[in-house]
Amino acid sequence: MSEPADANDPTRARLFVTAALDTGGDVALDARAAHYLTTVLRLKPGAEIAVFNGRDGEFAAKLVTARKRASALEIGAQRRAQPPEPDVWLLFAPVKRARIDLIAEKATELGVTRLCPVITRRTAVARVNLARLAAIAIEAAEQCERLSVPTVDPPLPLETVLARWPAGRTLLVGDEAGGGRPLGAALADLKPGPWALLVGPEGGFAEAELDALRRFQFVTPVGLGPRVLRADTAVTAALAVVQCLIGDWGHPPRS
Amino acid sequence: MSEPADANDPTRARLFVTAALDTGGDVALDARAAHYLTTVLRLKPGAEIAVFNGRDGEFAAKLVTARKRASALEIGAQRRAQPPEPDVWLLFAPVKRARIDLIAEKATELGVTRLCPVITRRTAVARVNLARLAAIAIEAAEQCERLSVPTVDPPLPLETVLARWPAGRTLLVGDEAGGGRPLGAALADLKPGPWALLVGPEGGFAEAELDALRRFQFVTPVGLGPRVLRADTAVTAALAVVQCLIGDWGHPPRS
Repeated sequence: MSEPADANDPTRARLFVTAALDTGGDVALDARAAHYLTTVLRLKPGAEIAVFNGRDGEFAAKLVTARKRASALEIGAQRRAQPPEPDVWLLFAPVKRARIDLIAEKATELGVTRLCPVITRRTAVARVNLARLAAIAIEAAEQCERLSVPTVDPPLPLETVLARWPAGRTLLVGDEAGGGRPLGAALADLKPGPWALLVGPEGGFAEAELDALRRFQFVTPVGLGPRVLRADTAVTAALAVVQCLIGDWGHPPRS
Repeated sequence: MSEPADANDPTRARLFVTAALDTGGDVALDARAAHYLTTVLRLKPGAEIAVFNGRDGEFAAKLVTARKRASALEIGAQRRAQPPEPDVWLLFAPVKRARIDLIAEKATELGVTRLCPVITRRTAVARVNLARLAAIAIEAAEQCERLSVPTVDPPLPLETVLARWPAGRTLLVGDEAGGGRPLGAALADLKPGPWALLVGPEGGFAEAELDALRRFQFVTPVGLGPRVLRADTAVTAALAVVQCLIGDWGHPPRS
């Protein structure tokens, strides 16, 4: 439901749907999707877009009815198969609204598969609007040509998440106190396997939290350079470096 | 003039000033700085902050008068010498206001020394508020513990900037059309020396622009992974990778 990159070209519109996709099938659109296609993009019956659902790849689709409350798509040929993607979790302390929106958007653009809000001692924001984060993730996935949408977990205390940590997944922790190795050096020695990134709140982690984190074998504290980054900057910056060095940036862009 | 990371601790406030800094000297504050210290942070005479000017390092400073239109600082001991920093330019096509603000903020956090708006064929935004970008850069520098502030150039057509390009500086161009090598691989072969990053508008470069760019010896087109990034995401992501791999991320954070 994002604006296509070239706003004059509505045929580049991409839409995330939850229904199964199969050539020749039909998909009814929910109110949000119908509004976007018929009111925002002013598409008429017969217009062609692309759809994806995170499982079946990307399909061409044709708008067959275009009424606000009863729009449907006729599914055409598959354009792209569902690609494998690195399994990447982002743990982040909720921050103020504009910044948490950016975190969800950037994490999606950088290939995160699971968004996990975690409550730390200095987390200043108590409530997290999960529906809003999920909507932002969908929009970002549509915009960035990705064929999947990250899941959004309900917020949990950081200690709970750590206590339940799955075996074999490395947790990179952005350590602004200076205790971590530079990210590039840490990644050079990282054992292969799934990973996650934890970025703390704007005020940083409490010293006791950092001590506790460092005691876990699966934790690798990392440094993100000589400047103190805002939480949303740290998310984008660290994810970009990891995707570039051990993730999926070896692949050419999709188009 | 940023909120300190811990908003309960106004002694962590950092202020950028243009005056020369020397222990024992005085610095008169402009209206903006005085408002921030006395009204926003409610500092009283005698409060201690830190100041920097991009040339003399960081100094302790004491508020000696605290009136809205006549506030001054008494400069104390030098806390940090002015560090050397990589000479990094960012060329970016102006985008809508919220996104261009993010570009200025993130570029500053990631160590850019010169912000150069460039007009490309698909640049949708004609006017650039340079004073606003400069103010955002100052705030971001104060916030991120950096001791310098990037300069902000007036916008120029991309072809003018390329025609005047200085010898010896590599220009990394974010090429969403897929013509570039993955950024990590391109950096491994980069010759040492100053560099710049060019990120195009949301609609991408025109094909003729990309062709023209690729003909310059100083241009290295680079790919930023399989997803199509928004302009502000591309800025943060590419700068982080370059600072991590060939820039100043080997240094521990300042504190």
